[in-house]
Order: sequence, then structure tokens, then C-alpha cells
Amino acid sequence: MESSLGKQNIQAVFDPQSVVLIGSSKIDEELGMTSPELFNNIEYNMQKYFQGEFTVIDIETPDTSIPEVDTAIIVLPPPESMEWAKKVMEAGIKAIIQITGGFPQDLKLEYLDLAMQHHTRVLGPNTIMGIVNTSIGLNTTFEKDLMPNKGNISVISQSGGVGAALLDWASYYKIGISKFVFTGDKLDVDDANILKYYLEDPDTKVIAMYLEGLKNGRRFVEITKDITKTKPIVVLKGGITEESAQRALSHTASIAGSDEIFNAAFNEAGIIRTHDIEELFNTAMALVNQPVMKGKNVVILSNVGGPAILAADAIAYNGLELTHLSRETQKKINEKYPGIEPINPLDIIADARADRFRDMLELVLEDPNVHGVMVINMLKSCFFEPEDASVIPEVAARYDKPVVDVPIGADDFIQVNNVLRETPIPCYDLPDKAAKALKALYDYGLIRQ
Amino acid sequence: MESSLGKQNIQAVFDPQSVVLIGSSKIDEELGMTSPELFNNIEYNMQKYFQGEFTVIDIETPDTSIPEVDTAIIVLPPPESMEWAKKVMEAGIKAIIQITGGFPQDLKLEYLDLAMQHHTRVLGPNTIMGIVNTSIGLNTTFEKDLMPNKGNISVISQSGGVGAALLDWASYYKIGISKFVFTGDKLDVDDANILKYYLEDPDTKVIAMYLEGLKNGRRFVEITKDITKTKPIVVLKGGITEESAQRALSHTASIAGSDEIFNAAFNEAGIIRTHDIEELFNTAMALVNQPVMKGKNVVILSNVGGPAILAADAIAYNGLELTHLSRETQKKINEKYPGIEPINPLDIIADARADRFRDMLELVLEDPNVHGVMVINMLKSCFFEPEDASVIPEVAARYDKPVVDVPIGADDFIQVNNVLRETPIPCYDLPDKAAKALKALYDYGLIRQ
Repeated sequence: MESSLGKQNIQAVFDPQSVVLIGSSKIDEELGMTSPELFNNIEYNMQKYFQGEFTVIDIETPDTSIPEVDTAIIVLPPPESMEWAKKVMEAGIKAIIQITGGFPQDLKLEYLDLAMQHHTRVLGPNTIMGIVNTSIGLNTTFEKDLMPNKGNISVISQSGGVGAALLDWASYYKIGISKFVFTGDKLDVDDANILKYYLEDPDTKVIAMYLEGLKNGRRFVEITKDITKTKPIVVLKGGITEESAQRALSHTASIAGSDEIFNAAFNEAGIIRTHDIEELFNTAMALVNQPVMKGKNVVILSNVGGPAILAADAIAYNGLELTHLSRETQKKINEKYPGIEPINPLDIIADARADRFRDMLELVLEDPNVHGVMVINMLKSCFFEPEDASVIPEVAARYDKPVVDVPIGADDFIQVNNVLRETPIPCYDLPDKAAKALKALYDYGLIRQ
Repeated sequence: MESSLGKQNIQAVFDPQSVVLIGSSKIDEELGMTSPELFNNIEYNMQKYFQGEFTVIDIETPDTSIPEVDTAIIVLPPPESMEWAKKVMEAGIKAIIQITGGFPQDLKLEYLDLAMQHHTRVLGPNTIMGIVNTSIGLNTTFEKDLMPNKGNISVISQSGGVGAALLDWASYYKIGISKFVFTGDKLDVDDANILKYYLEDPDTKVIAMYLEGLKNGRRFVEITKDITKTKPIVVLKGGITEESAQRALSHTASIAGSDEIFNAAFNEAGIIRTHDIEELFNTAMALVNQPVMKGKNVVILSNVGGPAILAADAIAYNGLELTHLSRETQKKINEKYPGIEPINPLDIIADARADRFRDMLELVLEDPNVHGVMVINMLKSCFFEPEDASVIPEVAARYDKPVVDVPIGADDFIQVNNVLRETPIPCYDLPDKAAKALKALYDYGLIRQ
């Protein structure tokens, strides 16, 4: 289906240098999404964030000459959308982000025909929030000021609502995002196109996907199998039960299928499956910056006893193992800190500050028995100060083993995460989340082999 | 072991009218917890929060006459603690919160002997953070300004570190707490004493417990079985694996035992088990304010399609059921809102505001097929405004069925939770957490029967 010009033009969906927004200051649909407010909000976000050339066409004004730009964002009811899509295609536009939906089938086919004739790529219709590209400030969403931090996770969402929740989550928790696409009805640009683009995209290191169904499961497996050899794909799948699958069917017009089939497909493709929005991003966050874990042996390095027990439980629940420290390591710990019992979980006592964490993290990462480390550095009831956490990335950078950090709690997490957020060390508020991240790093090690 | 005076005096552990803090402005132990800073911090919290009479004794000053008070907080090394415990017991004190630990066995026995002679109740030694009672502002913790909101959940923690994380969590998320006890070494006051006190305490509606091991499992089951008939007990158990259980053994000197034995004991006692700190409080939050769910049938009422699918998955994962709406309800929905498909999940469309949520919540709560409702009210990509959420508790108050709210996302959750926090409707950021809460309300319904 893709012409070679079409292949080139897909660049303009993700990475346009110039954009025109086309909407109406008058049309306010009762059903459907066209409204002056939505039009204004998209203009607001584009004006605020977009670093390229940006113009706006209000179709209610007399002078509406078509500018020469890469990409158009259209937010109009179906008939007006068709009219303006035709105009911009004829003017040689490369891509259209068709925010609004509600197109009857015949109009959809006409739209697709036109697009193919002109080699124009169309995201949508009904893409709703459209696309975000943090590296150029492209933001076609209508939620004012909703913009994630720059980073290397790229997202695909088959649902507007779940996508909005994902974007809210990523923005609030300052998760580093490269691109964020809402696929909508996939008239032209589909998951396969986006996945292929992400594979080639140097800014994308991990792909996070929300999917409800697949039109062509075989093709999906083939494409993703190829990608997961070099880039991890993490998936959240909605519609696992018969009833919710029926809803998914009516919701996105694709077959959700039985959950076991999806599990088999994900396994074959080397895709890591997660079970909620939080786990999707927690897993992606670990995969984007940490090396894979080359075995199951984890050490828990903690300044508190009880929470280290919860962490040990989490390691076991998630199919990893608490390794024994080598005799060599035990000897070194005894020499350096005779008061500390050299066992795992390694309780380095509530008065541990940066120096002791540095020394101990070095010792356990040197141990050939150890494949990964979960560091617990609580503030409450301990002497640890948030800035002490900066030794963790310092030491971890010298070893090819994953290290995750868990300042267990709420305020404790926020304070330590503020120190670690810009470093490669992923930070979690509870041990189970950190254990799941280590498990994903172990799984991806197997997948990449 | 408890004399009748001892039984009376336990009141002074939880609810003293007057308190003296005894510490040293000079002793700074290298090992052990005594330090001027810790002493000062406890003084700071007591001065700031305690509504009763409060005095401080610095043992380094010449005038240290013993005031006539209910309770002493002692933060001194073992020998000095013994000396001052004796003094205050002889002066007729009712209870001692023994913050510091490190007592050798013979000193412990001597302490206990003394306490029994004088009918003084002792919390600790090694209770570390001691006790919080929000209704009188009692706060013996050494973390400055760490004070949870007033409420009806009472907590027991067998670990100082996990307890600190629990208190951090409860304070940050503004979970309503009545009492919070760190049991420490349980020389005198033990879990059984605390549980019995909570059973009688009118401010305690739900008991949340972190436990690592039990000295007398049989007795624990007998006591808790009795309590769960009227008040729910929610437990987080640390040390599920052999390795972590070993650590728990060395950590709190009680036998963690095999996990299956605990599951059997919890089942027999009617205790609801949770798997992390977040789930412990999320569950307690639901149980404290919501009626039990008298069947498994849940309706999802949502202003977004995709997230409702995730919610349907969560209902299935947690062993609950998506019920069909009765014909009567379907008819009423068709009459009132012909554009809305009367199926479950009930998607009431992205432009739903307070009125439509009110109408629809009423209709589904009226339906005899429905035992509980999960409301999803997202802000992002929807017209819903946070203050619209106030109709949810308004309607729910008129029915004896649980309603939980899920403004899926991060910022969305915070905004809606700000509206719902002071109401009986528990609010969660992800559907799985809400489904677990409904499941606990269903389980507690069975337990109470």
C-alpha cells in the first residue's frame, strides 16, 4: 500500500518542520469533537511548544490561502474535513493529523483514495489527541499544557482515553518521552507503520504500546519480532475477558481475541507484557536506561531491616532469586564494616550515608554471583539524606549490571526520586515495582539472545 | 499476666492526658539510637501536636524532679533507661513508651519485673517511633512534622522501618488515621493487648497491621477471629520466603513460619491479606467508609471507552463479575439518554458532567442486579471537571452498596481526589486498585456473616 513517496512522507507525521492547524471558530458539534474550544486549545499547545513554523487557518475567515507546509492538523466535522483535506493535498502537503472522527464508511474510502493519489500520509481519523514529539515540541493534543519531558520512550496508543491517561501519567511523573501517537481509526498510518518508524528512530530506545486488538496478528508478530532484537517493546493489552473484549470490539472495531492467543503472540515476538499503566511505564523506564540482567541473582542493599524483608518477598514473588554473597565479598564486608552481617538482604544499618552506600554497592557489584541490585534507601527513621543517593548512579555506571532504587514510601520516594530522576537509575516507591523492573531486565536479556 | 490495674493503665499508652519526655542533651551513642537530635525531634513533635500537658526532663540538668503524669517517653541507653524507668514507676506513672532498645536479656527481665510490680505498662523497648494518636495529637516519633490526618484506621507495625514507610505513606496521601503503634520488642504490651484495645476503641473502625511473625499463632487467631466479626483487620505480612523469613527471624526474634500456615490462619480469623503498603491502605480506606458488597456484580460507569475496558479486565482479574443491567434499567437509560448504549461497562460519553453522572449512578444503584459500582471520571480528553465528582458521594449515600471512584491517571487522580478525600468515597488512580478494594468489601461481607 505504501508508495516510496508515501514512505518518505511518513516523516512528516512525526517530525514536520512546518505545520498548519485547520479548524473553525464557529462550528460547535453536539455529537462529535469539533468545537472552538478544542481548536483554541490545540493552537495554544502548538504555539507554546512547537519549534517549527506554525500557522492557523480558521475556515470562517475570508482569507484562507493554503500555506506551503509539511503537515496539517484538521479539527472539523467530516464534510468540512474532506473539503480541507482535499485542498491541502492538492497544495502538496505531506501529512495530515485528522483529529476528529465520525466519518461514514464511504467518506473514509474517499479520504484514503485521495491520500494515496497524493502520497499524503494520514494519522486518524479520530486520532483525538494526535501526536506528541518532544524533540521538536510538536503537540497536537487539546489538553492545555499537557507535555511530557524529553526522553527515549516512544508510545503508541490504540485508545484516546487510555492514551490520555498514559500521557497524564508520563507528564506528571516526568517520564522521558520521545514520541506519543494516538492511532485512532488507522485509515492509513497503522501500528506497523509506526513501529517501523520507531525502529529506525534514533531517539526511540524503548517502545511502549497500549493495544486493544490487532487487525493482522501474524504481521504484528513478524514486525515486532524483528524490532525486539534491538529495541524492547512493552505492551499493555486491554480487553482480556470475554465481556471487555466485546466492548473493545465495539470500541475500536478490531477483534480483541482470546487472551491466551495474545500471550502466545507476545512471547513469540519477544514483547514484554505488563498489567497496568503504572507497570507499563515503570518497566519502560528500567529498559530505557539500564543494562539487561544476565541472571536471576539479586542483592538487596538496604538501610532498614523490615523493608528489606518486604523486598525479599517481592524478589521471590517475581521469580527472581536472592543470591548468596561470595566468600570473597563476605570477607571484604567483614573487613571494612565489622558491624554489618554479610548476608543478603544486606542490612547496612539506619545510620548509613553516601560513603557506606558507595562502598557496599561497589562490593556487591564486584561479586560475580550478583546479577543485579535493589537499593533501599529510606529517609524516615534513617540518617540517609536525599542527596546521598547521587552515589548510586556514580557507582552503577562502572558496572554492566542493573541497579534500581527504592526509597520505600511516599514523601521519601519523591525526595530521592528528585535526585535520581535525571540519572539512569530508575526509582520506585515500593519493592514490588522495583522487582518487576528487574524481572523485565532479566526477561529482555533472554529475548535479545 | 495483666493485673486489673495493668488493664486500666494500658489506656495511658494510647490516650495519656499528661506526658513527660526523658532524654539527654549530651549522650550520643555510636551504636544505639540515643542522641540529642532524636531527643529534640521528639520534643518538637510533642510540642507541636500534643494537646495534653507536656514536660521534658533532660537528665543532664540538675533539677530533674519527676512530675505527676500518666506517661513517660524514654529515649536513653539501656542503663540510664532502667534508672529513669524505676524513678517514674516509683512516682506512680501508668505507662512508658520505651523508644530506645539494645537491652541485654537480664535487663529486659528486670524491666518487666519492675513494670509488673508497679502495674506500669511498657511499649517497647526498641519501639523506635513509639505511638501516634491523632485525636489528642500524641506523636512520639522523631521525624519532625510527620503527622497523619485524623481518621478511623488504626495501625500496628511490628517493624520500625516498615512502620516508618507506612506512616510516611499515610501522611503523604492524607489517609485518615486514629492510632499508630510500633510494637518494638513487646516486652509487655504486645499485639494482643493492642488488638483488644482497638476492638474497644470507638475511634477505630478498621485495623491495619504489618506483621513479620507471631509468638503465639493460636492466640492471635482466637483474638482476631473475635474482632473481625465487628471490625475488619487488614494485614501485610513480611517474610513469605524461606530466605526472607530467616531474615525476619534475626530481625524481630519471632518465627515467621511458612506462608501457607499464615494464609490458613488469616482465613480462619477472617483477616484480609494484602501484598504491599499501598494495597494495605487502599483496602483499609475502602473498608473504613463503604458498606460491604453483598455479591460479586459490579457495574463500571465511565466517561471514557478504553479505560473502561481496562477496568473490566481488573474486575475479572480480581474475581468479581461484570453484571448485565436489568431490562428495567436498560429501558430507563434508553428513555433518559437515547444516545447511550445500556450495557456494562456503561460508557456515558466524554461530554458527561455532574448531571449525567448523578442520573446514571442512581439508575445503576437502583438495579437489584448490581452489588457495587466503579465510577471512572477522567478529566483528560473529557469535559468532566473535578468539582462534578461531588455528586458521587451525594448519590452513593442513599444506597447500601459500595461505590469507588477512579479518575484514571496521575494529575487527574490528584484533582478528583482533592474533591473526594473528605467524603466516604475512596478514590484510586488505577482500576486494578479500585477492583481490589471492591473485592475486599465483598470478602468482608462474607467474613461478617
